[in-house]
Amino acid sequence: MAKVFSPKIFNDPVYGFITISDPLIQQLLDHPWFQRLGRIAQGGMTYLVYPGAQHTRFHHALGATYLMEQALNALERKGTEISKEERQAALAAILLHDLGHGPYSHTLEGSIMPGVHHERLSLQMMQRLNEEFHQSLDLAIAIFKGEYPRTFFNQLVSSQLDVDRLDYLMRDSFYTGVAEGIIGSERIIKMMRVIDDKLVIEEKGVYSVEKFLIARRLMYWQVYLHKTVLGAEAMLHEIFRRAGEVVLEDPILFGTPALRGLLYAKGQEHSSDDLLDWFTQLDDTDVMASIKVWSTHKDPVLSNLCQRILHRRLFKIRLQVPEIPEDFVQECRQKSAQVLNLSPEQATYFVQTGSVANQGYDKSKGEINIYMKSGKLLNFFEASDNLAPENLSKKVVKHYVCFPKEILPLATWPQAH
Amino acid sequence: MAKVFSPKIFNDPVYGFITISDPLIQQLLDHPWFQRLGRIAQGGMTYLVYPGAQHTRFHHALGATYLMEQALNALERKGTEISKEERQAALAAILLHDLGHGPYSHTLEGSIMPGVHHERLSLQMMQRLNEEFHQSLDLAIAIFKGEYPRTFFNQLVSSQLDVDRLDYLMRDSFYTGVAEGIIGSERIIKMMRVIDDKLVIEEKGVYSVEKFLIARRLMYWQVYLHKTVLGAEAMLHEIFRRAGEVVLEDPILFGTPALRGLLYAKGQEHSSDDLLDWFTQLDDTDVMASIKVWSTHKDPVLSNLCQRILHRRLFKIRLQVPEIPEDFVQECRQKSAQVLNLSPEQATYFVQTGSVANQGYDKSKGEINIYMKSGKLLNFFEASDNLAPENLSKKVVKHYVCFPKEILPLATWPQAH
Amino acid sequence: MAKVFSPKIFNDPVYGFITISDPLIQQLLDHPWFQRLGRIAQGGMTYLVYPGAQHTRFHHALGATYLMEQALNALERKGTEISKEERQAALAAILLHDLGHGPYSHTLEGSIMPGVHHERLSLQMMQRLNEEFHQSLDLAIAIFKGEYPRTFFNQLVSSQLDVDRLDYLMRDSFYTGVAEGIIGSERIIKMMRVIDDKLVIEEKGVYSVEKFLIARRLMYWQVYLHKTVLGAEAMLHEIFRRAGEVVLEDPILFGTPALRGLLYAKGQEHSSDDLLDWFTQLDDTDVMASIKVWSTHKDPVLSNLCQRILHRRLFKIRLQVPEIPEDFVQECRQKSAQVLNLSPEQATYFVQTGSVANQGYDKSKGEINIYMKSGKLLNFFEASDNLAPENLSKKVVKHYVCFPKEILPLATWPQAH
Amino acid sequence: MAKVFSPKIFNDPVYGFITISDPLIQQLLDHPWFQRLGRIAQGGMTYLVYPGAQHTRFHHALGATYLMEQALNALERKGTEISKEERQAALAAILLHDLGHGPYSHTLEGSIMPGVHHERLSLQMMQRLNEEFHQSLDLAIAIFKGEYPRTFFNQLVSSQLDVDRLDYLMRDSFYTGVAEGIIGSERIIKMMRVIDDKLVIEEKGVYSVEKFLIARRLMYWQVYLHKTVLGAEAMLHEIFRRAGEVVLEDPILFGTPALRGLLYAKGQEHSSDDLLDWFTQLDDTDVMASIKVWSTHKDPVLSNLCQRILHRRLFKIRLQVPEIPEDFVQECRQKSAQVLNLSPEQATYFVQTGSVANQGYDKSKGEINIYMKSGKLLNFFEASDNLAPENLSKKVVKHYVCFPKEILPLATWPQAH
Repeated sequence: MAKVFSPKIFNDPVYGFITISDPLIQQLLDHPWFQRLGRIAQGGMTYLVYPGAQHTRFHHALGATYLMEQALNALERKGTEISKEERQAALAAILLHDLGHGPYSHTLEGSIMPGVHHERLSLQMMQRLNEEFHQSLDLAIAIFKGEYPRTFFNQLVSSQLDVDRLDYLMRDSFYTGVAEGIIGSERIIKMMRVIDDKLVIEEKGVYSVEKFLIARRLMYWQVYLHKTVLGAEAMLHEIFRRAGEVVLEDPILFGTPALRGLLYAKGQEHSSDDLLDWFTQLDDTDVMASIKVWSTHKDPVLSNLCQRILHRRLFKIRLQVPEIPEDFVQECRQKSAQVLNLSPEQATYFVQTGSVANQGYDKSKGEINIYMKSGKLLNFFEASDNLAPENLSKKVVKHYVCFPKEILPLATWPQAH
Repeated sequence: MAKVFSPKIFNDPVYGFITISDPLIQQLLDHPWFQRLGRIAQGGMTYLVYPGAQHTRFHHALGATYLMEQALNALERKGTEISKEERQAALAAILLHDLGHGPYSHTLEGSIMPGVHHERLSLQMMQRLNEEFHQSLDLAIAIFKGEYPRTFFNQLVSSQLDVDRLDYLMRDSFYTGVAEGIIGSERIIKMMRVIDDKLVIEEKGVYSVEKFLIARRLMYWQVYLHKTVLGAEAMLHEIFRRAGEVVLEDPILFGTPALRGLLYAKGQEHSSDDLLDWFTQLDDTDVMASIKVWSTHKDPVLSNLCQRILHRRLFKIRLQVPEIPEDFVQECRQKSAQVLNLSPEQATYFVQTGSVANQGYDKSKGEINIYMKSGKLLNFFEASDNLAPENLSKKVVKHYVCFPKEILPLATWPQAH
Repeated sequence: MAKVFSPKIFNDPVYGFITISDPLIQQLLDHPWFQRLGRIAQGGMTYLVYPGAQHTRFHHALGATYLMEQALNALERKGTEISKEERQAALAAILLHDLGHGPYSHTLEGSIMPGVHHERLSLQMMQRLNEEFHQSLDLAIAIFKGEYPRTFFNQLVSSQLDVDRLDYLMRDSFYTGVAEGIIGSERIIKMMRVIDDKLVIEEKGVYSVEKFLIARRLMYWQVYLHKTVLGAEAMLHEIFRRAGEVVLEDPILFGTPALRGLLYAKGQEHSSDDLLDWFTQLDDTDVMASIKVWSTHKDPVLSNLCQRILHRRLFKIRLQVPEIPEDFVQECRQKSAQVLNLSPEQATYFVQTGSVANQGYDKSKGEINIYMKSGKLLNFFEASDNLAPENLSKKVVKHYVCFPKEILPLATWPQAH
Repeated sequence: MAKVFSPKIFNDPVYGFITISDPLIQQLLDHPWFQRLGRIAQGGMTYLVYPGAQHTRFHHALGATYLMEQALNALERKGTEISKEERQAALAAILLHDLGHGPYSHTLEGSIMPGVHHERLSLQMMQRLNEEFHQSLDLAIAIFKGEYPRTFFNQLVSSQLDVDRLDYLMRDSFYTGVAEGIIGSERIIKMMRVIDDKLVIEEKGVYSVEKFLIARRLMYWQVYLHKTVLGAEAMLHEIFRRAGEVVLEDPILFGTPALRGLLYAKGQEHSSDDLLDWFTQLDDTDVMASIKVWSTHKDPVLSNLCQRILHRRLFKIRLQVPEIPEDFVQECRQKSAQVLNLSPEQATYFVQTGSVANQGYDKSKGEINIYMKSGKLLNFFEASDNLAPENLSKKVVKHYVCFPKEILPLATWPQAH
């Protein structure tokens, strides 16, 4: 008996109702790999600062798919022809674009699956799904990879002004309660148009684009790269660095099979199929359940770090534009060793340095093009006589050092600015 | 060196900013037992239907504490004297009121800690905290237990119109996106007043109370007792019933130590202190991480149930006012055994019956009293000439049976109504 | 040269963007008679209590048209065929449904155009527009009058659950800030379906309908029939009663020509065409500009009443279910005469009695029918086992007397309840 | 008998409830001059583009007063002492700050009361109220004029980051539905602090200030200086220019006494007391009621312009950074004369030129100072390493010409950019 598809309807506090009518999209949504995104927080450790930010990658992917549908409808109304196949493929591409995210989103990228970027994993997983779904994702994959000639489809999935960003800014702003992140995604979509198969924004949308760029930059510094969040992420990173060593000496270190598989795999040879199998079973619950058990492990570094993250006794962090002076880092380490009764090597787990960067406007992802009433195409900065290209395009890099609060006060604590 | 307290400020998408100034409340908030509530979903399995409902007990407790502060301020402005100690105690009582909730909130109550209601656990945990905090929770506990003579404090914590309900209706409505649950909590609080140490609502707030009662009832049927949610909860319940048996035969059944402790404890003698220790370590991640591992267990019942919940292949459910006919249940079981290739005993895990109830207005929790402009006190139904007391006070009981979708169609599928 | 139509887009804080694509609907929207609705407050004098309630009939009509479009789309997706002509006619019917409203909406109905209900005026104006637009409103008028055989179109325009009510509850709730009026209009529309050309609501929408009925009732008592609003409306009514008399003695009484035309017309013979011409020129500004001038008129009744409404020194009002005792009204009048130094006849303008009524569910407008999953059609009360039909269907009548605050205290001021 | 004051509570869709407790503030609020602001649209003709923008100066003043109270509370919590008199005065100053606005806010400034800025009128009216209220506004006036030594009070009333701007951005954004204007006013207020009696913003508020500046600039170009709004304002301006001439020849030109008084007063000598008397009686309804009558006046210029604004047949406008070439303006005039059958002099009323300007950051209103964690005070641009001072501080000037749509197409229509 043929399976009958009726539309799936989701309540979304951000957009109202989201209706998924396409049978293929429904099946992808029901796939265990997509369901897994429902156990991965969109904002990683952000919830430690913004307790409302518990929303998941699942919900974001659903929201982005909704916006894609809105965008395609808007373009069709303006005369752009979009075939049924193209529509389905565009929806599939955006639905699956984050499939490759691991637990706590970006935090453990590189530490659980070393050297593999989530976009590459997303692609790998889409390709496996393509086999499972009898090549019905061919076009979606081409769009995702930017190989489909009608460029605007890829631009809607991944560019400086794609439905991915439109959704995550709205959604993260909604769930964190940081009203400043609210953007006019509906308005921006209404201003989209396709010229020569490229995505452009109509002239009167230029203020909304300015607002979008500014809102995005602010969300970076106020939420995504919030000091406390960075400190918690550094902690989580060190927990896994330590666990990877402890597991070599403690073969019964607690962990779900998938997590243990990946921990052991480090430094050993494994088929990438094995790795991917484990990875696709992993989500936030493996990590947090393990951290809870590890918080009483006999290794003092591991247990101490785990207790801190569990009970929200987070690292203090200094985040600044100038590089962190090496002698300050050294003082942090020495004092940590002394106060926490650790060896110098152990102290390295408690004092982390690094840098974060944000670029308000990034030409390497392609220009945002503005379609003037005169018919001319200008790039965003030519069209906006207000924002400063040299500033917004500048990559702002900030350096940080984080350390246990207990070591304060420090002798060399540098003065701000 | 004395610890310096500066106010803690939380972003809350529902109320804006929540400021916690009281040092004791801050310390309680930092306690591991309270932090644990940040890993327990407020709505249990609700997120399977409403993907936005990922908010936690932590956030709800914080919100209720905020509303308590608002209510106390409103009462003070109307001349009710509230001492500093009473204020602190009322805040502590509401902050901690849900401490005794286990993973997935109500779902596993009774199945993980058999026979212990979450309110009794909350009280037990508050008493332990009281020792830890050198008796500074004496008054909070008296308020929580309803033993403090100024009754309105307890009524604000736990009555038919308390800040607990005001917060959860607002919050659940916000995160699920079910706009119908929005109530005028700010307005209701402005209408509160204390007469003879009892909480009353001023006459002009009577429509807001009506609305609150109706919204609450609707949230019950549309969200808390939503069919699909009930089906998922039944599934989770059966998973733990089965795991409790499997663990007796499979001593290395995966699980965090706390979860294994409680699974083994069933039917054995254990000090209640041991049980409480394990319980206070347990949260949603223990449960979900285990379910993921169990989904490949060799026990066909356990693994099948776990797969279903993981991949959202939930039970179908029939929910109705009349009792479920026994022959219908039997048919469900037989067909499940046949279709899923199970023994009759195994099939019982896949066909669950039960009932749920909701009462719009429950006198046993005390009347809602209305303070008329004339100076008279009336109970809610005397004051509202619109709502039907006999209907709203009626306990609506619905019976359900849930079963795997695969067994449809059934011969005796009863006609609705 | 042919006029080119591009869609008109309106920003709406309630729904986001409203797009009007149909050329005829655009032309109707541009018509002076529709533009006039932009100078008539949707809520009459409500803004005197809720300062945000300044939104206009224009905006409500636009919103209802948007919801009509949503509803038609939802029905089409469920297989109901709707021709292009029917769609246009349904949009036109709802756009124009309030055309016959005069200044301050309901307040002056009956006092400016005596004995003519706004719906009859709407119809009359639609018929004139039909001539102007070369019969292109034939079908719209048939739908409006309930003469088109496919009943659901008329039900969407005017029934117990029409897009008119869905919009005004949402909109009034939004602009007044009375959150309790928020309803799930989007959800209700998703639950609509057409069976045998009749509008029905699917079973799972029954809670939303309950909520809609309760929200509507509360909005009536809390906003539309708010005591202070009723007092202001009585005042406005008396102002026009008095002005109608003053104008006979003071031929140069200030007023716009249209207003003076209608004031003089009372008691004289005039072609209904003349009356309609004047009426269609009248809006809130004629009324308020005149009241301001009249506030210094030598007639003490007229000027006193006008000053009160201008400077918000509104009548006090007693609103209650029992009838107002005649001796209480007499005392009010005597005391008013005495305190304000008026003749007994003059005092009648300052002490008004009357009654208001609201019916939560009104069968005379047709049942709300629920389409059960079983395929049966039930009326709302059969489907909802919760709300009390006898109560919700009961017409609640309240009587009031309003009078100047200065006459308090009164000897016979009756005790509440 | 002493008048008893109980707090006045207003429902505000933007902030929830606004409570006015201070008796003086209540009396000011009840004063006819303040009530008059309830008949003046906050956004002038903006509603012609954003139909939701019907909110009044009354509501804005109320909202700004609420924010002032919030700000004073926040400062007190941080240790700034504020006396009861200072609090009352600050509230009075902000409540009355817009008293001097005339009909349609900025539009008719200079055309009805020639050469008088609304702030000077506000001050004049506050001084008259001060007499009426027995000098109880002395301190409020000192704060308003910037003469009170504790500068932060004046800064809260009138600076680059005052509660006036915080409210109008939030409120205009809410009522227009332009979500991009939403700012974190609550957050900014939480970040305020007083150092040496000057208002500063704490370092971590710097992103919110950036956001505020960008949102304000965008609201200017997208709402306040929206092309269509500018066109409508030019039209209104010309209507009054023409009416001022017509009245000289048509002594019975329709108008309320106050409006006629001011129209006649032009070019004649009048005591400024007379002018102020008339002015304080004037609001939007005088203007719109007159326009309606004038739309059938025999003067073709006056009636044509009035019809256009009434029926929303607005001027087309060209708005651009380069100046409008004179020959283009000439062509517009010639063609208007020809198409509309007007004399060259008459055509000048239909073709208007002018310029508008906006400055994102205006040092002449005083710097926004940031209080760094290090204890240093920096100006905003020193503290924000992201926004470009040279751009945001630049005054952006745009020139426009507006003309009747009927004259298109034009030969010399210049190409954009």
